[in-house]
Amino acid sequence: MLGQMMQQPLLISSLLLHAERHHGSQEVVSRRVEGDIHRCTYAELAARSRRLAKALALLGVAHGQRVGTIAWNGYRHLELYYAVSGSGAVLHTLNPRLHADQLVWITDHAQDQVLCFDQSFLPLVEAVASRLPTVKHFVLMADKSRMPADSKIPGLICYEDLIDSQPNDHFDWPGLDEQTASSLCYTSGTTGHPKGVLYSHRSTVLHTMASALPDALNISARDVVLPVVPMFHVNAWGLPYSACLVGAKLVFPGPALDGKSLHELFETEAVTVSAGVPTVWQGLLAHVAGHGLRFSTMRRTIIGGSACPPAMMTSFEDTHGVQVIHAWGMTELSPIGTVGVLKGHQDMLPLEKRRAIQAKQGRSVFGIDMKIVGENGAELPWNGTASGELLVRGHWVVEQYLQGEQSPLINGWFPTGDVATIDPDGFMNITDRAKDVIKSGGEWIGSIDIENIAMAHPAVAMAACIAARHPKWDERPLLVVVRKPQAEATKDELLAFFDGKIAKWWTPDDVVFVDAIPLGATGKMLKNRLRDLFQDHLLPPA
Amino acid sequence: MLGQMMQQPLLISSLLLHAERHHGSQEVVSRRVEGDIHRCTYAELAARSRRLAKALALLGVAHGQRVGTIAWNGYRHLELYYAVSGSGAVLHTLNPRLHADQLVWITDHAQDQVLCFDQSFLPLVEAVASRLPTVKHFVLMADKSRMPADSKIPGLICYEDLIDSQPNDHFDWPGLDEQTASSLCYTSGTTGHPKGVLYSHRSTVLHTMASALPDALNISARDVVLPVVPMFHVNAWGLPYSACLVGAKLVFPGPALDGKSLHELFETEAVTVSAGVPTVWQGLLAHVAGHGLRFSTMRRTIIGGSACPPAMMTSFEDTHGVQVIHAWGMTELSPIGTVGVLKGHQDMLPLEKRRAIQAKQGRSVFGIDMKIVGENGAELPWNGTASGELLVRGHWVVEQYLQGEQSPLINGWFPTGDVATIDPDGFMNITDRAKDVIKSGGEWIGSIDIENIAMAHPAVAMAACIAARHPKWDERPLLVVVRKPQAEATKDELLAFFDGKIAKWWTPDDVVFVDAIPLGATGKMLKNRLRDLFQDHLLPPA
Repeated sequence: MLGQMMQQPLLISSLLLHAERHHGSQEVVSRRVEGDIHRCTYAELAARSRRLAKALALLGVAHGQRVGTIAWNGYRHLELYYAVSGSGAVLHTLNPRLHADQLVWITDHAQDQVLCFDQSFLPLVEAVASRLPTVKHFVLMADKSRMPADSKIPGLICYEDLIDSQPNDHFDWPGLDEQTASSLCYTSGTTGHPKGVLYSHRSTVLHTMASALPDALNISARDVVLPVVPMFHVNAWGLPYSACLVGAKLVFPGPALDGKSLHELFETEAVTVSAGVPTVWQGLLAHVAGHGLRFSTMRRTIIGGSACPPAMMTSFEDTHGVQVIHAWGMTELSPIGTVGVLKGHQDMLPLEKRRAIQAKQGRSVFGIDMKIVGENGAELPWNGTASGELLVRGHWVVEQYLQGEQSPLINGWFPTGDVATIDPDGFMNITDRAKDVIKSGGEWIGSIDIENIAMAHPAVAMAACIAARHPKWDERPLLVVVRKPQAEATKDELLAFFDGKIAKWWTPDDVVFVDAIPLGATGKMLKNRLRDLFQDHLLPPA
Repeated sequence: MLGQMMQQPLLISSLLLHAERHHGSQEVVSRRVEGDIHRCTYAELAARSRRLAKALALLGVAHGQRVGTIAWNGYRHLELYYAVSGSGAVLHTLNPRLHADQLVWITDHAQDQVLCFDQSFLPLVEAVASRLPTVKHFVLMADKSRMPADSKIPGLICYEDLIDSQPNDHFDWPGLDEQTASSLCYTSGTTGHPKGVLYSHRSTVLHTMASALPDALNISARDVVLPVVPMFHVNAWGLPYSACLVGAKLVFPGPALDGKSLHELFETEAVTVSAGVPTVWQGLLAHVAGHGLRFSTMRRTIIGGSACPPAMMTSFEDTHGVQVIHAWGMTELSPIGTVGVLKGHQDMLPLEKRRAIQAKQGRSVFGIDMKIVGENGAELPWNGTASGELLVRGHWVVEQYLQGEQSPLINGWFPTGDVATIDPDGFMNITDRAKDVIKSGGEWIGSIDIENIAMAHPAVAMAACIAARHPKWDERPLLVVVRKPQAEATKDELLAFFDGKIAKWWTPDDVVFVDAIPLGATGKMLKNRLRDLFQDHLLPPA
C-alpha cells in the first residue's frame, strides 16, 4: 500500500527556486577576480542561471555531459552550480592546485565537454588546452572588458557573452529523475590516480537538508555565510546549496584568502558563519592578533579538512567568542559525516572536558551511520578506547567511483581508510589513517596523537610521524620535523616533550629534521613520500 | 546518466535506528495515564518497539494494514508509531474527542484491524466496540495490573503482554519502498465526512528533516521537547519523529494538560521547547500568572492550529522570555507549511513591527511552495495586500484522499481553503477561510481581522464574524459574541470599538450575543452552524 502524497523529485534546481521565490531579495556578495565587490540578489542570480542554462544547451551540452570549472568562490561559479546541474548536465569542479598533468588526466577521465575558468587560471588553461581533446568550448568567467585580445585558446568564449546571448530568462528547470547525476568531484588520493565521485540530485539535496540542521552547520536565513572552503573542494562542503535552502546571505571571497582580505569582508558584510580548513584560519587569526582586531559579527566557524589544533579552538572560542564547529567528512561523503556539536548533558561539563569532546571529529548527522571494525571485520564497541577502521553508510555516501571497476564497499559499508574510536555518546575520534598506522609488536600506535603533541612544541612548524621498519618490533614510530625559523630544539628536547603526555612505548624512537614536508593538493601531508625516504632509518646499516 | 551514490530508502524506522545508535542513552519521559512518571531511553524504547513489531505481526497485521490508536502522548504511543509504520503497516491515530458515531465511521472507512487505546478511553471503546467489525484485536495500553477483570470487550489484550510475548528483541526493520504508506490521519472537516490523508515514509522523513531546521522548529540534541499537541493530531506536528532525528529528550504529558501539571513537568524535566494550540497555552499562562511562577528552562514555544492571539505572544516573550514560533499547517501538509521565524533584516526592526510580522502565519520551509490566486486562478503578487486563495505544493502535501474519488488538486497545487496575503519577504497571512469570506458589494471582507479586534475587547470571551445576507450588499458582516461572565458590553460599545482599527465599511452591521459558540473536535469554531442560525438576521422580516 503506497502513501498518497505528492510526488516531487529532490532536485538541485528546487534549492535555487526556493531561494528565488522565498528569499528573492537576499544578497549574494562576491569579491571578484577583477578586484571589486559584486552584489546581486538570489532573484537576479536565478535569472542569470536560467540564461546560462539555455546558453549551455546551445553550446551542445546534453543531459549527463560534464562541464568543468576551475574557479574561485564567486557568483559566476554559483550560477554554474545551478545552471549545469539544474539542466541535467554534470558540474565537474577541478582543483586548480593540481599539477597540470593531473588536470589533463582528470579532464580526460571525466570527458569534460566545456571548461569554464576564472581569469586567474587563464595561463594554466592555456598551457594545457591543446592536451584536452574532449573539451569543445573554453569559457573565461570574466567581464567582456577583461577578455584577452589574443589568447592561445582558439574560440575562447566570454562568460558574459553566453549570458547575454539569451534574449530573456524564460526557462523551466527540467523535471529530472532525482537519481540523475548532478556533480563530480575527484578525490585527491595521495597514491594512484584520482577517483571520481559522482553525486546525484537526491544525494545532494538530502545532504543539504541534513547539513543545515541545528546540530550540523546550523544555517538559517539570519546567517551571513562566507565559505572560505573552495567551491572546487567537495562543493564547499555544500554551503552553496544550504545557503539557498535556508535563504542565507552568501559572501564569496574570490581569490583573496589572506587574513587581511578575509577579515575585511567578515566585517563589512557582517558575516556570522564561515567554514574552512585549519591553515586558512591560521593566517586569519595571525592577522587579527597582529593588528589588535576583533570579529564583530562572527558567531560560528566550521573547521574541517583536517583536525583543528587545540590552540586554534581556544583562540576562536576564548579570545573571540566564536564557536568552533569541528566537522569531519570526505569527498566520498558529499562531504559531511560527523559534526562535533555537544549534546545537552555535555554542555554542563567543565571547559576542559568540553574541549576534549570538541577536539574529536564529532557525531553522525541523521542520514549517516558509522561503525568501527577490528581486523576480522567484527564491529567494535563504542567505549572511546577500542579503535578500528571506520566504515560509513548513508544517503550521500559513494556507492561506486566513476568508471570504477569494482565497488569500494564492504557489505554495503564504505571503508573510510581512517582508524577511529567512538565513545558512548557517539563521538568519533580519528586516531590514524589506516595506511599510516604504526604497528609495533602487534599493537597499534596512532600517528596523529604523536603529531599533535609534537606540533604543540614551540620550536615545531610541522611534524609527521611515520612507521619505520624495526628489527625487533616490526615497526616503530619515527618523527619527521620541520623546525620554525631560528628555532633550535634538539632531538632529545623534542622526545622529552612527550614525557607524561603519551604512553612511554608510543614515544618515537628517533627524530629526523627536514626542511619541508611534501603536501598534496588539498594541503595534506604526503606521508607515503616520507616513508619512501625514511622507512629504513631505524634499521642497522646494511 | 545516474549518480553513483548509495541507494537507501527514506524510512521511518531509520529515525528510530538513528536515535538508538547515536543517542541511545537519551531519555523519553512520560506522565502516564496510571499517574506516575515513566522514564526510559531511546535504546530501551527501540528494543520494545521491535518486540511490539514482532507481536503485531503474530496478531496478523500485514503490510499495509491499519492499526488504530486512541491515546495520549506517551512512550507506548511512541512505540506504536515506530513498530507499526516501521514494519510496513499503517498507523492510524484517532482523535478521542470525536463523537462516537464519527469514530465508528472513521474506523470502518480506514478498515482498522487492530485498535490500541489508553485506559482513559476504555469506556469510549467499550461503548462502540460492537460497531467496529473490521477490528479483530483490541489492545489496552496499560500495565497488566490495570487490566479490567471483566471488560465488555471479549479477548481484550494487554499491551504489556504483547511486548512480553516476544522472547527477545531481535528484529531487523524491513527495507521498504519509501513510498509505502506509513500513517493515516483524518481531517476533522466542519462539514461532510472526514477525509483520510495517507502519509508515506518518504513524505514523513522529508517533513521531519525540514521541520527540525533552524528556521522551522529548530530542534537539536540539546533540546528537551514536550509536545502538548496530541499525537492523535497530525502526528503531534511531527515532533515524535524530529526528536528521534536529532536525539532530543522527549517529555510526554499524558492526559494531564492542565496548567499546573504542565508547568510542573516543564520545570522538573527542564523542558526547552514545547508546542501546542493557543487554548492550551491560555490555561498554562493563567496558572503561571496566578501563582507567580516562571519558566526556568523554556526557550521556545511553537504555536499553531489557530492564530496566536497577540496578548499571548506578548506574555510569552516579554514576561517570560520564551520565544514564540508561530507556525501554520494542515493535516494535508503533514502538517507544517510555514513558520514565522524572522529573517535577518527583520531582526533589526522595532518591537512593534517585529510583532506584526510574527503575528502572520510565516514563510515556507524548504520543500513547500505556495501561491495565492485570484478568482480567475491567476497568481497574485506578493505585496502583503493582495489577498486570494492559498495553494500549496511540496514533498509532504496530499495528492489524493484515502479512497477519494477525485483529486483535490488544481493543476498540481493543493487548495488550502484559506484566503491569504503574502508579503515581499514571503510571509503569508491568513485573512479568512475561503468559505467564511464575506462578500459585500463584490468586495471581500476578512472575518479573522474582525474577530481579532473583537477578541481584544475586555468584555469579549469569544467572537465569530459571519456573512449575513443583505438586501443591498448581498452579504454584510455580523458579529456573534460570547461575553465574559459579569461583562455587560452593549452592541453599540462593541461596534464603537472598531473605530479607527478597521476600514469603516468592514465594521459589522450588528452584534448578536450568544451563550456559547459551537466548537469542532480540534477546538475550531463551527461558523457554518452560526450561519445556519443567523444568516437571515439582517434581512427585513418576511
